[in-house]
Amino acid sequence: MPNLRLALAQTNPIVGDISGNVATILEVVAEAARNGAEMVVFGEMAVTGYPIEDLASRESFILDAEMAVKKFALTINELGLGHIAVVLGHPAMATPEEQTGWAIALNCASVLLGGEVTGRYAKHHLPNYSVFDEYRTFVSGNELLTFEHKGIRFSTVICEDIWQSGGPVSKLGSARTDVALILNGSPFEIDKDDTRRKLVEDLAKRHNCAAAYVNLVGGQDDLVFDGDSIMVDSQARMLVRLKQFKTDLVYVDFESKDDIQVVAEHHLTKPNDNWQVWNALVLGLRDYVRKNNFKSVILGLSGGIDSAVCATLAADALGAENVFGVSMPSKYSSDGSKDDARDLAERRNMNYRVEAIEALVQPFESQLELFGLAAENLQARVRGLILMSLSNKEGHLTLTTGNKTELAVGYSTMYGDTVGGYAPLKDVEKTLVWELAKWRNQYAQSRGEVEPIPISSIEKPPSAELRPDQVDQDSLPPYDVLDAILEAYVNNRKSIDDIVGYGFDSEMVRKVFTLVDHAEWKRRQGAIGPKITGMAFGRDRRLPITNRYKG
Amino acid sequence: MPNLRLALAQTNPIVGDISGNVATILEVVAEAARNGAEMVVFGEMAVTGYPIEDLASRESFILDAEMAVKKFALTINELGLGHIAVVLGHPAMATPEEQTGWAIALNCASVLLGGEVTGRYAKHHLPNYSVFDEYRTFVSGNELLTFEHKGIRFSTVICEDIWQSGGPVSKLGSARTDVALILNGSPFEIDKDDTRRKLVEDLAKRHNCAAAYVNLVGGQDDLVFDGDSIMVDSQARMLVRLKQFKTDLVYVDFESKDDIQVVAEHHLTKPNDNWQVWNALVLGLRDYVRKNNFKSVILGLSGGIDSAVCATLAADALGAENVFGVSMPSKYSSDGSKDDARDLAERRNMNYRVEAIEALVQPFESQLELFGLAAENLQARVRGLILMSLSNKEGHLTLTTGNKTELAVGYSTMYGDTVGGYAPLKDVEKTLVWELAKWRNQYAQSRGEVEPIPISSIEKPPSAELRPDQVDQDSLPPYDVLDAILEAYVNNRKSIDDIVGYGFDSEMVRKVFTLVDHAEWKRRQGAIGPKITGMAFGRDRRLPITNRYKG
Repeated sequence: MPNLRLALAQTNPIVGDISGNVATILEVVAEAARNGAEMVVFGEMAVTGYPIEDLASRESFILDAEMAVKKFALTINELGLGHIAVVLGHPAMATPEEQTGWAIALNCASVLLGGEVTGRYAKHHLPNYSVFDEYRTFVSGNELLTFEHKGIRFSTVICEDIWQSGGPVSKLGSARTDVALILNGSPFEIDKDDTRRKLVEDLAKRHNCAAAYVNLVGGQDDLVFDGDSIMVDSQARMLVRLKQFKTDLVYVDFESKDDIQVVAEHHLTKPNDNWQVWNALVLGLRDYVRKNNFKSVILGLSGGIDSAVCATLAADALGAENVFGVSMPSKYSSDGSKDDARDLAERRNMNYRVEAIEALVQPFESQLELFGLAAENLQARVRGLILMSLSNKEGHLTLTTGNKTELAVGYSTMYGDTVGGYAPLKDVEKTLVWELAKWRNQYAQSRGEVEPIPISSIEKPPSAELRPDQVDQDSLPPYDVLDAILEAYVNNRKSIDDIVGYGFDSEMVRKVFTLVDHAEWKRRQGAIGPKITGMAFGRDRRLPITNRYKG
Repeated sequence: MPNLRLALAQTNPIVGDISGNVATILEVVAEAARNGAEMVVFGEMAVTGYPIEDLASRESFILDAEMAVKKFALTINELGLGHIAVVLGHPAMATPEEQTGWAIALNCASVLLGGEVTGRYAKHHLPNYSVFDEYRTFVSGNELLTFEHKGIRFSTVICEDIWQSGGPVSKLGSARTDVALILNGSPFEIDKDDTRRKLVEDLAKRHNCAAAYVNLVGGQDDLVFDGDSIMVDSQARMLVRLKQFKTDLVYVDFESKDDIQVVAEHHLTKPNDNWQVWNALVLGLRDYVRKNNFKSVILGLSGGIDSAVCATLAADALGAENVFGVSMPSKYSSDGSKDDARDLAERRNMNYRVEAIEALVQPFESQLELFGLAAENLQARVRGLILMSLSNKEGHLTLTTGNKTELAVGYSTMYGDTVGGYAPLKDVEKTLVWELAKWRNQYAQSRGEVEPIPISSIEKPPSAELRPDQVDQDSLPPYDVLDAILEAYVNNRKSIDDIVGYGFDSEMVRKVFTLVDHAEWKRRQGAIGPKITGMAFGRDRRLPITNRYKG
């Protein structure tokens, strides 16, 4: 019989659905109890979902969340589970003295035991960079919470607390902590996982304690929480890694802080980066659809790589029967493109239809006397109008198929190919779109399945097909060069001089900067999509539209 | 001969246009010198424009701004103006020890004298609420800057420093400050002006010093800086108020901190709220157009009140010759609406054309078999497509005519009436649109001008005219009730229970909450527009799209 059986619970809450999230937490606690656990730890804000943004400034919301926690403590006690310590994240009101104008709440971890809230920790380090605005809406806490359960000393901290120096986390050792419980709402970014692991290992070493790092899982607007919770012992040995991109519940038997056994099978590794990115995109899309009460998606199938990858992601996320592809050929569409669009849909047995645009375009062209760029944009907008009309008529969510590179340089038609509520490839640069397409085909092959993406969609030169013989490279640098310049400018904030110094052509760099800056108004009106890099467009990168800086 | 002549300089910088802004500052200093000034004070970030958002995280930008300030100090010295103390706002690099990941810069006020930067103050209180994210990108300063010039002791602080308690501002008195120089980038909000005045008067009283409050003027994306700089003496007597919504340069002759004379005519009052709101909207629109290198705007004229007010604002901002109105009647458009649209355009002699939509709508309806809501949205989208096509063809900025109430409840068609780069009425609720229309007509009448807005556009029941005999009140509560509920929910963050407690019908309140919450995705893709209230949609109110909270 172990000293204590601890359950790490990786749940997928829905922001604002307090009663639904608490119901899930109750199911998990009951299951953990059946499996002999005496403690269950959940992620940051598991009660409300995360991030709650300005909901944190609504008093009714914070009070509802606090009340739900108190009621939940009573409920589990009434169910005979009061002996189980439950540690979970939720917001709570700060005292009137602590509150400032917009920041009225604390980001808390509470300990429930015997029907009561027996302890509460408030997050000290409030992230206020990248997609996070916590200094805007939360008051900072200053006290470490340490408590004993079954003779073991636990301390709680929350997410950003372990990413910064100083604060309550520095007292873990002096508080003689056996196990640090770290509640997290940490979104996926390519390669971020190893940073987390290192932070947790360092913490265990520095403070001579075991550490349970429990993350949320699931998509919330533009963020994808990937789970991947971990436990290390006080020797900083990683013991277990929870599933990535799935809910999970894992038990560890605790003898002492350097003698911890994982119950049942477990793993310490995870698949490669392409697998991770693909699954992040699938989960982000699935949860946006599900949590916003859609059942199906509609998108234009051009025969090109972007729409092929989007449709495949959607089929993986929702089932091909919930994907509605529309081919919208014009007089400039090649037979190859039309064939590729049909081929794509047939490979997965998606819903598919053809709506030729010529009869819809022509009346505009002649009434408004459109030619040149205006006529090119017209075609894209007629396609957008078709998709939105079918979305309205049939109830599908419209997907926008543009990628990060296009979004960066504004290579799109506003209210044309940009229409839709969700953009699966928003943070996926063009070169990575190709890589993912190839990877997904190989993955299918390795499982004996039909490759979902037509090879010619991968291999042909990309084209918007808005005029005869057009290819993207008529107006843009080659995509490998373009993506390298964008990486330096957008992700790494380098200057023109810096990038020219790397060996790129000066005129080309200047042109790319101008394109990026002039497209800011388009990005402001763009659909949200899942962040997978360290610098996504949207809340992650906030620049003025009116901006004459060129450097 | 006074002890010192001080110039308060209210400039309209363009974000990122460092060389252009410095050129303006130079002109102002030269003019002030010609008029005998020995000191000139500019607003917050006058060198770079404000707010610079994540430009503050670009090292090249901060270094360019700092270099520009140093060069400017040399330039005015070379021009024989080195005896003039110039105080101006700009960003500067923080030390490596002070920097955190995203916050590498300080928000500074520098003193230039004799060709050198002789002193520098860094803003202490960084606003991180409402539209401001300064904690994200700036490092906080902690030291008051006090310096003598012509025997008078000046201290500098910046904007938010006087809105919060504590920090360097509390040392104004102990530093024996004669004049507090307060550099501001304070955007217009209805009624905010009196708060500023009170803060400045309180500061003067508390620290026994005179105070010069210098604000920026001009539109920057969704903010309108209204100028309205003020000077008070150490008895807290307001001496002068600079122009609102215009650049201005005012001189005061300083004998002692309670003996200050204003040079030339001056005023202490300003016009009524409707005048202020109207002028804020005009300036916001004019500067968005001008600073983004447009010359003209295009908008749909429905005959309704919103498009009438937008067109009139545009004519006031840009001249009627730069306003292109398009009437786009359908089979559901009443003769009255068509007449009102033409009447509106003729009253100001705007450019006007008619593009009937029937021949463009019909092919979509029949090819896609659209009816009901999908067919209503189709009409709005065909109109949007017409406007964007003409914008592409002729180079106008497209204006979106929707008001705050519509935006709140999602009473609009995405990619239809929502198309455009700028939404003049984005923060103007429907009831205020009517009020402004009446005010603008009265204003014209009082000046002996033709009333710009047709009376029937003001008086008829509002209708989207997307089906026979439709009026807005078929699907929405009466606008006075709706606006009252929205004020409580959106602006004041009240709960359903709170608002029902005020006496509103429970079912109606619930319906309004649902409409507001379900329209979040539309607002995310909406055009920017000028903030005029304490809670504008956009950066001011940040809520998740995926959000099931109902309370």
